Amino acid sequence: MFDPIRAIDIVEEMSVADLVSGFSGCAFGAGRIATACEIYREMLEDSDCLVFFGLAGAMVPAGMRKVVSSEIKAGNIDVLVTTGANIVHDVIEAIGLPHLKGTEVVDDVKLYKSKINRIYDVFLPESYFSNLEEWLQGEVFPNLPQAVSIRELCSAIGERLEDPHSILKCAFDAEVPVFCPAVQDSIIGLQAWLYKQSNSFTIDALADMQELIDLCYEAKRAGAFFVGGGVPKNFILQSMLLTPKDFDYAIQLTMDRPETGGLSGATLDEARSWGKIGENAKSVTVYSDATITLPLIVAAAKDGGKRVPTS
Amino acid sequence: MFDPIRAIDIVEEMSVADLVSGFSGCAFGAGRIATACEIYREMLEDSDCLVFFGLAGAMVPAGMRKVVSSEIKAGNIDVLVTTGANIVHDVIEAIGLPHLKGTEVVDDVKLYKSKINRIYDVFLPESYFSNLEEWLQGEVFPNLPQAVSIRELCSAIGERLEDPHSILKCAFDAEVPVFCPAVQDSIIGLQAWLYKQSNSFTIDALADMQELIDLCYEAKRAGAFFVGGGVPKNFILQSMLLTPKDFDYAIQLTMDRPETGGLSGATLDEARSWGKIGENAKSVTVYSDATITLPLIVAAAKDGGKRVPTS
Amino acid sequence: MFDPIRAIDIVEEMSVADLVSGFSGCAFGAGRIATACEIYREMLEDSDCLVFFGLAGAMVPAGMRKVVSSEIKAGNIDVLVTTGANIVHDVIEAIGLPHLKGTEVVDDVKLYKSKINRIYDVFLPESYFSNLEEWLQGEVFPNLPQAVSIRELCSAIGERLEDPHSILKCAFDAEVPVFCPAVQDSIIGLQAWLYKQSNSFTIDALADMQELIDLCYEAKRAGAFFVGGGVPKNFILQSMLLTPKDFDYAIQLTMDRPETGGLSGATLDEARSWGKIGENAKSVTVYSDATITLPLIVAAAKDGGKRVPTS
Amino acid sequence: MFDPIRAIDIVEEMSVADLVSGFSGCAFGAGRIATACEIYREMLEDSDCLVFFGLAGAMVPAGMRKVVSSEIKAGNIDVLVTTGANIVHDVIEAIGLPHLKGTEVVDDVKLYKSKINRIYDVFLPESYFSNLEEWLQGEVFPNLPQAVSIRELCSAIGERLEDPHSILKCAFDAEVPVFCPAVQDSIIGLQAWLYKQSNSFTIDALADMQELIDLCYEAKRAGAFFVGGGVPKNFILQSMLLTPKDFDYAIQLTMDRPETGGLSGATLDEARSWGKIGENAKSVTVYSDATITLPLIVAAAKDGGKRVPTS
Repeated sequence: MFDPIRAIDIVEEMSVADLVSGFSGCAFGAGRIATACEIYREMLEDSDCLVFFGLAGAMVPAGMRKVVSSEIKAGNIDVLVTTGANIVHDVIEAIGLPHLKGTEVVDDVKLYKSKINRIYDVFLPESYFSNLEEWLQGEVFPNLPQAVSIRELCSAIGERLEDPHSILKCAFDAEVPVFCPAVQDSIIGLQAWLYKQSNSFTIDALADMQELIDLCYEAKRAGAFFVGGGVPKNFILQSMLLTPKDFDYAIQLTMDRPETGGLSGATLDEARSWGKIGENAKSVTVYSDATITLPLIVAAAKDGGKRVPTS
Repeated sequence: MFDPIRAIDIVEEMSVADLVSGFSGCAFGAGRIATACEIYREMLEDSDCLVFFGLAGAMVPAGMRKVVSSEIKAGNIDVLVTTGANIVHDVIEAIGLPHLKGTEVVDDVKLYKSKINRIYDVFLPESYFSNLEEWLQGEVFPNLPQAVSIRELCSAIGERLEDPHSILKCAFDAEVPVFCPAVQDSIIGLQAWLYKQSNSFTIDALADMQELIDLCYEAKRAGAFFVGGGVPKNFILQSMLLTPKDFDYAIQLTMDRPETGGLSGATLDEARSWGKIGENAKSVTVYSDATITLPLIVAAAKDGGKRVPTS
Repeated sequence: MFDPIRAIDIVEEMSVADLVSGFSGCAFGAGRIATACEIYREMLEDSDCLVFFGLAGAMVPAGMRKVVSSEIKAGNIDVLVTTGANIVHDVIEAIGLPHLKGTEVVDDVKLYKSKINRIYDVFLPESYFSNLEEWLQGEVFPNLPQAVSIRELCSAIGERLEDPHSILKCAFDAEVPVFCPAVQDSIIGLQAWLYKQSNSFTIDALADMQELIDLCYEAKRAGAFFVGGGVPKNFILQSMLLTPKDFDYAIQLTMDRPETGGLSGATLDEARSWGKIGENAKSVTVYSDATITLPLIVAAAKDGGKRVPTS
Repeated sequence: MFDPIRAIDIVEEMSVADLVSGFSGCAFGAGRIATACEIYREMLEDSDCLVFFGLAGAMVPAGMRKVVSSEIKAGNIDVLVTTGANIVHDVIEAIGLPHLKGTEVVDDVKLYKSKINRIYDVFLPESYFSNLEEWLQGEVFPNLPQAVSIRELCSAIGERLEDPHSILKCAFDAEVPVFCPAVQDSIIGLQAWLYKQSNSFTIDALADMQELIDLCYEAKRAGAFFVGGGVPKNFILQSMLLTPKDFDYAIQLTMDRPETGGLSGATLDEARSWGKIGENAKSVTVYSDATITLPLIVAAAKDGGKRVPTS
């Protein structure tokens, strides 16, 4: 009735797909990685499935932007919901300003005096934000209509970027809509407000919901891939509430925990009680650092995943 | 140079203020509670200090709304930044629909079939959302101007509530502005969109930023009390970026962790590198469940805090 | 069928018992604190219940030793299982060497050069260990029989201490047996080995198990209070395995999480599958910092807990 | 002065070594995996380095035993310190009793009635412990001298196992000493006590410390690889305290957190203040599920790690 645990075997020249195959006989986090990879493969192979990707956290500064942008290019993401921070840092990289590998063991007051901003062990010079301001005020805002939706704003930014690894550019090129419900909670929001000071300009918070709901209605089936929780997780889950449907597949990569009751750490089962995830949906949460598990799952899902024999 | 640890003494009929005084000689989380309480008292006693309160998580369903609403009534909160979820659940309680104490050890598919939604160990009947819809579509949206800011929307909701324990009502009465940057990421957002289907209606995401920035400019000093992280934490911290000022006091209650690099778990020191928290600001993070620590700190701060002699 | 959530009311001059009563209508961690307190009260009122107290973590350096020693004096603990570290630090305090309140934001190499050892934000001079050595080699080991059990070693140490707040002294005075399965994994173990270099001396790891199992057999009912996990948790839980009994009450205060599969973070329900905790036992885990929750629960349990009316 | 973050590129047929090379330009957990792998490679290439491996948690039930046993066979582990639980479960597998892949979403009382024990999502029939009892009482204890050290007990068990994937057998074959300071805190301890009921038998808790300290003295350099914390971590770290040396390399894989002050979550820097880890030692902690990160690091360290070009 229950399968035996099959201990993973480490071999030389092991591929990521083999590692994840090896995980399939294991328990705890290892077993969950294997399940996540299996669900991701199924989600991608299901041509009727609309794939939503929720990107929270500071994944771009950590070096994860090409994982996301290449999944967009590969047609593996149909709808992206993210945070203002990930957009800001994607644009910063895209206009040629690299994040720096620093350290978290540091005197932050000294950093401040050196005009270096810190995101855990990532550093970025404060001056980047002047460059960002110049680009946004010069290239983006003046070319926008007086009233835009957030989805249109993201699209307009992507359209103006040239970096082939930019998430926003790839999303624009692939016609993947990008939603960012709390865009004003970011430097882009502050810059939009600055622009509004001397120009007639509004961002209608509700204007892109029709498009999202239309997408949900049209989808035969739906899958969700949540990197972290936050607004992207909730926004994706609630998008189904206005349709008679629910998610058929769901993967969550997080370090948050259920016991504090917040949505970010909530189990995917909790979402079943709301009818957001379906009764028979396949779902898994991997409680581990997403900068490790996201590349691992994406790399493994790329390959057929010939099973390594373990005994 | 370093004070000795003073072991806490538990006595009979101990007051919360005495307990927290006892914590002041302790280390780890206990010591941080004492520091948080001290900073909160200082923040409140500093009549030039504008107090920002960031309320993330699902604090209202957990039974924390009166802690927040009574702090507003007491004049201890000047600006509230919160999530759509906390607003939705505050309104649900305020229109007479109580959350229920359930359990997290449950079959969520069965719950779904019984039309019960779950938030960890809190249950709420799905039918509540019909009542909420009726109230919002009947009482609130038709009485709003065609274009509102999110702050105005929150205020309009509070104005129409009668429950003296409602956060939104108390905020309206006390003229405390409520900001909610991702309001569309909530049932209120979905309802606003529904209303917009047959009415001319927009929520301008940028419209309330001027008011927030004016508040920041006018403040001589500023303090931040973060319950959880998320959008409220970031929005409060970034509000100072457009002024030459920074926060003088900051308290964070969270279970999130720094190592994943997300803003919710970031240390308050990290915010110093950005100039959001001042070089000489007093700050502390308590890594513990906020449903325990928030009432503890608020209750202790209410009293003079006569120090319990420990030896 | 389900009770409504009753929001907690913070009042002036609030007692800890009132705070915990207020938590009883709440959910998440707050609700669990109320349940823990209720179970603790029941455990203590049940005169047939043998109370096991598992003390892991670095609770003594953090200032928690009087909470434990006063519970021993009050007759609220019948059997103590702890770590070598808690014993070492209890002795250090008891021979007059106070731990110091330091900071975790520090250069550890500099500390090392200043001969200061760090336990998170607690400092202790390296010299303390010379004093400890002198005391153990002079007062304790020479007065022991050639072969001792760990329980006897703990007792012999307690017998020789004079500090009325020492856990080991109070346990000795109250005839509460102290078990410490991994005693060699501590400075006391290293000192015992040093003594053994020039003396015939053995610590029999199995010698005190009979006494523990006898205690378990004689108990009509049993309760467990786990502060942290580790060896104390497992040792207490397994003690019942050789009897036909199981625990009737269990409380766990921890920040560890279940998903990694380790015993420290395992739910108390998991222990039911092993028959360690009974089918109808009352149990609760509070996921929060134990330096905050232990004093809170102990202080509240001391009082009758007149319920604060909330509405 | 600071290197730019290099975003990781996922390619087809990616090897684990390439994935970890890709992580080397990233931050947060991904960057730490790359550092851990680099330190592990250096530790193994340093022929004067004695490698200590601390194995806590329930790694064997999760399917990790072959990762450890094959590292022992490969000569990559010189000293193993582990918990009673890992030994018990290694023996259970080795005598032909497979752990089963179950689920953590389960009614533990039902499991108990079905005589199934649970370790998170691993199941094992209660009957296994009768088989284990039979084997230990029949094959192991009667063949031991009257007084053994724990190291000798582990060795005697390994000698009698035939499973080529058993950690204890591989350690015996490779003459790798296995220490298990809290062995009585496990079913093996309970079984030893049962045996002692009718036989003269003692386990001297101090008897193997000389051997450990000799190993430390003889080592020119030392490295530590900690999977989880607990007793193995502390025992390994303290082993250096009686020598003038310290660890030159240290890797820790854990989900525990520093803020609670316990040793399991303590940073490796904290150990520098004690002189356990050297001033110039290379060290890293990866905060992520060890059932994922241990195989990842071991697999990557096996290969040369040709760097994937990222831009």
